[in-house]
Amino acid sequence: MNSFQPPERLLMGPGPSRIDPRVLAAMANPTIGHLDPQFIILMDEIKELLQYVFQTENEATFPVSGPGSLGMESCLVNLIEPGMRVVVCQNGFFGGRMREIAGRLGAEIILIEESWGRAIDPQKFRDTLKKHSDVRLVAFVHAETSTGALSDARTLVEVAHEFDCLTLVDAVTSLGGCELKTDEWGIDVCYSGSQKCLSGPPGLSPVTFNERALQHIKNRNSPVQSWFMDVEEVLKYWSGGLKRAYHHTAPINNLYGLHEALLLARKEGLENAWKRHFQNHRALVAGLEAMGLKMAVPEKERIPQLNAVEIPGGVDDQRVRMKLLNEYNIEIGAGLGQMAGQIWRIGQMGASSQAEKIIRTLRALEQLLREEGLQIPEGVSEKAADGVFAGA
Amino acid sequence: MNSFQPPERLLMGPGPSRIDPRVLAAMANPTIGHLDPQFIILMDEIKELLQYVFQTENEATFPVSGPGSLGMESCLVNLIEPGMRVVVCQNGFFGGRMREIAGRLGAEIILIEESWGRAIDPQKFRDTLKKHSDVRLVAFVHAETSTGALSDARTLVEVAHEFDCLTLVDAVTSLGGCELKTDEWGIDVCYSGSQKCLSGPPGLSPVTFNERALQHIKNRNSPVQSWFMDVEEVLKYWSGGLKRAYHHTAPINNLYGLHEALLLARKEGLENAWKRHFQNHRALVAGLEAMGLKMAVPEKERIPQLNAVEIPGGVDDQRVRMKLLNEYNIEIGAGLGQMAGQIWRIGQMGASSQAEKIIRTLRALEQLLREEGLQIPEGVSEKAADGVFAGA
Repeated sequence: MNSFQPPERLLMGPGPSRIDPRVLAAMANPTIGHLDPQFIILMDEIKELLQYVFQTENEATFPVSGPGSLGMESCLVNLIEPGMRVVVCQNGFFGGRMREIAGRLGAEIILIEESWGRAIDPQKFRDTLKKHSDVRLVAFVHAETSTGALSDARTLVEVAHEFDCLTLVDAVTSLGGCELKTDEWGIDVCYSGSQKCLSGPPGLSPVTFNERALQHIKNRNSPVQSWFMDVEEVLKYWSGGLKRAYHHTAPINNLYGLHEALLLARKEGLENAWKRHFQNHRALVAGLEAMGLKMAVPEKERIPQLNAVEIPGGVDDQRVRMKLLNEYNIEIGAGLGQMAGQIWRIGQMGASSQAEKIIRTLRALEQLLREEGLQIPEGVSEKAADGVFAGA
Repeated sequence: MNSFQPPERLLMGPGPSRIDPRVLAAMANPTIGHLDPQFIILMDEIKELLQYVFQTENEATFPVSGPGSLGMESCLVNLIEPGMRVVVCQNGFFGGRMREIAGRLGAEIILIEESWGRAIDPQKFRDTLKKHSDVRLVAFVHAETSTGALSDARTLVEVAHEFDCLTLVDAVTSLGGCELKTDEWGIDVCYSGSQKCLSGPPGLSPVTFNERALQHIKNRNSPVQSWFMDVEEVLKYWSGGLKRAYHHTAPINNLYGLHEALLLARKEGLENAWKRHFQNHRALVAGLEAMGLKMAVPEKERIPQLNAVEIPGGVDDQRVRMKLLNEYNIEIGAGLGQMAGQIWRIGQMGASSQAEKIIRTLRALEQLLREEGLQIPEGVSEKAADGVFAGA
């Protein structure tokens, strides 16, 4: 057994995305203690930078010490008490995960189901809330990583508030890649992942809770079932100036990496990043369509940074993805759950969202689809993408 | 706000410990996907290396994607069902944390309390189990990080098995630093941390479950309250050859680091590492006692890698630790919980357990204690430690 030397993959899947060499270098800095005053300064800076990317002034904004799925569970376990009625929207795999977690926590779930690959319908959402006046929490996914569908978070939150419901929004794939305005839209609780459009190290989950949500948690009748995720406990470590209480050992070097990734995000500016992702999305879609491929999500409901494309008939899903990986060192995502074998998920997130990476991916895919027997004139996808870049 | 450049601290506290530059360099390798076949090979190697350090053949041996406290909660949440009667031993802060988590999970807890700074008394343990014949799970801390006391895990497990109880052992501070033999001692479930004697990156928690424990989990009447920590779900990702199911995005670069740290541990050999920690412990204690300091734990109950020493009267705890940090770049640990202000915790774990680092720490502490007004002849602590090293 030897030291591990990973291949240099071009990460064009649903995450993790490419990590900037400056972020990787930051992670290799010497470890210091999780209560070191220098580290506490770093923590405060991370909070401030996360407030910027979430577009919030929430004091309770910090990274959970675990991946996005732990962030999801952290939010749900704090907000839900056994027997509580909760609306969960499911239009893909991750809505299903919310439902699963909420169920284990003893919630009575009212499910709003939507076809996979479509946005949540605000009218159905409103009708459901009207019918169930005792609901005080609704949870939905902003950008469904499993299908590429983007829901209208702003409208859904507005409707939820009309019915006096707290809102929990999954922004794992949206944060940093497309418009998300926590405070302006009134989102009460939001979580994300470090390894998508922020291009930070995998394994951290930025979360934010507003005052209304914290008040709801304070008023619980039963303790939060999880000690590790109890936000009131965690905040004793993540706030309070230099005098803060030990809660758990933070993933120190990962936080070095997140800090550096957030500095890069701030340097570019959020709106510039949103534009970049959108522009590269248009080029990618033009290239895919020029090959004759069909996007799986209607145009107005697409997540720019995560593109679900239908696998053409007669093409071997597994073989194409494995050749992409082994011959071209490019990773794209398979379909998840009921979409396995039907779609590919091509991400262009964070540091992976660059014109030359889009072109490299299109070229390789075009070649492999020809090898699968599709009649695609050489270079059409690159030309189409270039057209978009030129007109940018 | 600028890129963070951490100071070079000598980490002589209760963890994190020093990380070898080879481990830091491994973490800066380019990120690949969490389902990449190359990554799956790495995962299998990590499992095998963890089996070695745990001294187990348990197939269910893997790192939880979060810090040791999440590992603790992961073990408890899988083993405990609401209403179950559980014996928890508390001889320090972390036994208290086990109790807190078990309580939130709805366990009926039978507490065995022991003075902080002492090992769990096997006779009291036996008497308790005799009295409560319906108990099927006992949980205790092997090496209590908060006090420096080492309990006799082998004997406690033996006794527990006489009463047909499953055993859950906290080995956060013991794994890799002193004798721990999961299979030979019959430990059913054990968890640890990456950042102590393994000198891996903070943020991972190695765990191991034997067949008996997995069978207990399989026979649960209620689902595990946590989806993220449900070991049956997690094992779909952490086992099964090349075809494995997505569960969550692993902390990829942290796992690169853990792999490298485990390779270094295997290269040294576990028994050599135990000897090294014990030898350096003897030198450290000789040095501390030569200064006139008193160890807080009786000699036969001490954790070699974590040394609790009483703070002499008239000495300012906070001032000494801050000067050590700011003037000497050395971190040692404060007392936790009821021992705050009474003891210092001087660790020498993993890559921090080296003769020159012990000497450097003794020298600095000796000087600072003189500044606090203690009459200590210059160089006595170094001389005493050197005596141990010379006689090694």
